[in-house]
Amino acid sequence: MNLVLLEPAELGAPLPRVDPRARHILDVLRRREGDTFHAGVVDGPIGTATLDHIATDALIVSFVPIREPPPLPPITLIVGLPRPPTARDILRDATTCGVAAIHFVATERTDPNYATSTIWRDGEWRRHLLVGAAQAFDTRLPVVTWTHTLGQALTSFGSGAGGEPAVCLALDNYEAEAHLGRWKPDDPGVTTPIVLALGPERGWGPADRARLRNHGATLLHLGKRVLRVEMAVVAALAILQARLGE
Amino acid sequence: MNLVLLEPAELGAPLPRVDPRARHILDVLRRREGDTFHAGVVDGPIGTATLDHIATDALIVSFVPIREPPPLPPITLIVGLPRPPTARDILRDATTCGVAAIHFVATERTDPNYATSTIWRDGEWRRHLLVGAAQAFDTRLPVVTWTHTLGQALTSFGSGAGGEPAVCLALDNYEAEAHLGRWKPDDPGVTTPIVLALGPERGWGPADRARLRNHGATLLHLGKRVLRVEMAVVAALAILQARLGE
Repeated sequence: MNLVLLEPAELGAPLPRVDPRARHILDVLRRREGDTFHAGVVDGPIGTATLDHIATDALIVSFVPIREPPPLPPITLIVGLPRPPTARDILRDATTCGVAAIHFVATERTDPNYATSTIWRDGEWRRHLLVGAAQAFDTRLPVVTWTHTLGQALTSFGSGAGGEPAVCLALDNYEAEAHLGRWKPDDPGVTTPIVLALGPERGWGPADRARLRNHGATLLHLGKRVLRVEMAVVAALAILQARLGE
Repeated sequence: MNLVLLEPAELGAPLPRVDPRARHILDVLRRREGDTFHAGVVDGPIGTATLDHIATDALIVSFVPIREPPPLPPITLIVGLPRPPTARDILRDATTCGVAAIHFVATERTDPNYATSTIWRDGEWRRHLLVGAAQAFDTRLPVVTWTHTLGQALTSFGSGAGGEPAVCLALDNYEAEAHLGRWKPDDPGVTTPIVLALGPERGWGPADRARLRNHGATLLHLGKRVLRVEMAVVAALAILQARLGE
């Protein structure tokens, strides 16, 4: 936890001592009354918090905003709905890497039961975003959905946030034309929105590939070594962000 | 488990049914007597195994080698000794990505207790390599050490396996000159060995940086977002392998 993230509604309210953030402030950061620490407001500014008072069952914390974090990278991630443990890792790690949106979608080979996991039902998914953002020293959370098919997601989210055209890249171990590392933005000066699509663990089916190609996607791979889906997300985002950052 | 890995000594021997590989063959791959599956011999060939017989407490498996996997990428990973759960992830995931060696080293800010974890004492570390290699569809395991200091590792392992000069790159969130994505091999046609060094969770200290610079290391970063060490390993290896594969 590199940044203690507070919800807007929590500003000025006592932070219960059983809250993991309170335990982190006292036990890991070892802050005492009057000490400060890095904090941020979810989807708001980063700043400095002061531990004003340690009460029996809560901490009293004040917050002074310093700066707005930059916008999230214009990358929309589309992933075939994975098993819940994999979904947890992707929610956390893709948020740490920095993406504007994560859409978990039904594909030909996804298990429909995965969409009814408690991750999605009980709002657990958002906790993993908070952990990922705090790690990255950011307050901004990606948009997340898990109720669309691949086709619906490509239609609804397959272009930039403002409707501008996006580059669509799909990872594929079987029919890819080249390594993702060979992809280069047409105009490196301009930040074109990117849609990055990864299949589920069992890969894309033929109808999935037809949908991706109809949408103009380029099929690319990450080399001959087969990565777990959650590793492929981190590897692909690292390569794309290295390109965009050049 | 994309590949069932057998130790050389296990070839021709019964595979106990309590072994995770036996359970995988029966329960996940759903193989019955006479069926075949992808298998490999640790640090040896990849081939086809046949489930010849299902006995009460063991599987009888025969193996036909088909091809030797290519050598591991000439990348030596040096990592400040991490907490055991992080070490487990790095052992598995760096092996999946493909590296020739992983040296966990003592640095200014590593906790010396981490070197006495059961991971290292009981040989548990090798199990994580096997999982990582099986995921990558490879049989080759990296060399692993955990008893050197950063200085010793740079002296002993800081050049290529044949003693040829290596490029040394160190990740650093504080004093890096450029993004790792900007690094390019001097001669893209030649595969120069690379030493990639990552600090422990608390980062490099000033004496670590002096050692790295004396060794000729270039300090590079992965952008402004702070990644967990195990994510930084995957991200950095993905970027380097994308470069090497171009």
